[in-house]
Amino acid sequence: MITPNILNTPSTPIILIYFVYFETLKIPTNMTRSQLFEQIKLKKTFLCVGLDTDIKKIPEHLQSLPAQDAIFEFNKAIIDATEPYCIAYKPNLAFYECFGVEGWIAFEKTVRYIREKYPNQFIIADAKRGDIGNTSSLYARSFFEHLDLDAVTVAPYMGEDSLKPFLGYEGKWVICLALTSNKGSHDFQLSTVDGTSTRLFEKVLGTVKTWGTEDQIMFVVGATQGKMFEDIRRIAPDSFLLVPGIGAQGGSLQEVVRYGMNKQCGLIVNSSRAIIYADHTERFAEVAAQKAKEVADEMAECLKPLL
Amino acid sequence: MITPNILNTPSTPIILIYFVYFETLKIPTNMTRSQLFEQIKLKKTFLCVGLDTDIKKIPEHLQSLPAQDAIFEFNKAIIDATEPYCIAYKPNLAFYECFGVEGWIAFEKTVRYIREKYPNQFIIADAKRGDIGNTSSLYARSFFEHLDLDAVTVAPYMGEDSLKPFLGYEGKWVICLALTSNKGSHDFQLSTVDGTSTRLFEKVLGTVKTWGTEDQIMFVVGATQGKMFEDIRRIAPDSFLLVPGIGAQGGSLQEVVRYGMNKQCGLIVNSSRAIIYADHTERFAEVAAQKAKEVADEMAECLKPLL
Repeated sequence: MITPNILNTPSTPIILIYFVYFETLKIPTNMTRSQLFEQIKLKKTFLCVGLDTDIKKIPEHLQSLPAQDAIFEFNKAIIDATEPYCIAYKPNLAFYECFGVEGWIAFEKTVRYIREKYPNQFIIADAKRGDIGNTSSLYARSFFEHLDLDAVTVAPYMGEDSLKPFLGYEGKWVICLALTSNKGSHDFQLSTVDGTSTRLFEKVLGTVKTWGTEDQIMFVVGATQGKMFEDIRRIAPDSFLLVPGIGAQGGSLQEVVRYGMNKQCGLIVNSSRAIIYADHTERFAEVAAQKAKEVADEMAECLKPLL
Repeated sequence: MITPNILNTPSTPIILIYFVYFETLKIPTNMTRSQLFEQIKLKKTFLCVGLDTDIKKIPEHLQSLPAQDAIFEFNKAIIDATEPYCIAYKPNLAFYECFGVEGWIAFEKTVRYIREKYPNQFIIADAKRGDIGNTSSLYARSFFEHLDLDAVTVAPYMGEDSLKPFLGYEGKWVICLALTSNKGSHDFQLSTVDGTSTRLFEKVLGTVKTWGTEDQIMFVVGATQGKMFEDIRRIAPDSFLLVPGIGAQGGSLQEVVRYGMNKQCGLIVNSSRAIIYADHTERFAEVAAQKAKEVADEMAECLKPLL
């Protein structure tokens, strides 16, 4: 059998250019689980900054701008200030859609800004979408083709064919709601199912994880759920979890780490309001950076056993 | 106590202008259940035309336009042609979002066109949204303030506080997913819950209906679910049901009517692909109207016992 020596083939220059180009820009076309863990180890943080940009809460000097500029300028300042302390950004679509077209412009500009300036950041569209198969495939197209996001949050209620289309993109992720951080999580997610003691969120975890690999599927588990992380890790030991709810919603980082961290960290912990609205003056970005650094410092301690 | 005679107050002209304006335009600022039934009786149809406008499927002569114009021109022609045969339109957001900003422009133009030209049409944003309370309230703002839609579809997985913000708008509707038309509906919706024979979709129906009135909440039940409508009517006898899945998805109108119709009709039956893509030539709108008329004629027969 002939083993081709790659450096002697005619396409070597192309391969080299490709390699140099992607290494320089560090475009994470395929952000696998281990690449995500590499970023976490490198930056000693697993913080995700939630870009829930509410125009009523941003500093006054920005509020005089047209909505799309106000939102984008706010995001840009927050991103530039917090970038050293996080590995992911998560704009929640609701905050953009409520301005219609203007909001979508701000959303797209924000995503493109992060992608170009900080290509190693993992970008999550917090959209909680899900529809019948042919329709979900269009949502997937929105987030993975029209825009080059890394992940999108989806709701599991409509089952397999509503999630599958998102899994057809190499290196892209689906983050499925499992046990959310809000009070309403008790209404249906905690119902036991099928005559067993299994709760709905556990059935969702156990079922959805069979639809793809741990390099494709993460789960949303609210930081407010404390010891429930133990139950979750029994079902999905290796999956990454996206954890909202620390800060303003009252969840504890220490509890999340104690019960939820795995050998590859396995956690992306989100904070939105506690960071981005920590200050309402012209110093908002600087204070946001301080807040993000505080969380990142705490995370660096938590990561020590893994480094 | 002085009872003011409204006709003698200084504001009489304003009140009269207001009255004449709204009566002329018939703006359904409060589309109640009985007003919806009035429309159904008047037009002898309970058809909703789904504006799932896929640019790859629209006639070639429109495909040369920029995306936003192509989508809007297609929708406008479909709306003008089918309007006599339906009482509602349902754009599915996925089909617009996949073009980003351009898609949102087309979506907004479509909604405004229907609202202005056909103010008695009930407009549903098929968005399947749902998030924690403060975020859901922004989605509600998108659809009920930024745009004047009548209803929005929501997913129940996140529970009460994810739905409640949509219920804060007088005369606006939430349409909650219960039993969907797709194969994936079997994955979780049919799981029995709480150690009983109650299935998850039945718990959703029974629980969600207590969060508001039958003038605020409808449920999505797929036409493909046949006899299940009997079970649904036992739990929600008076609720309106939005029924997708006839036509391309294979559901039967006769079955839906037999098991699902109530004294106020209680059904809005949606058809998308079978109407809007019935023809791919320049005659597409004319053929769509024929198809819509065929469904409406069948519906008129079904409505006879109620008229």
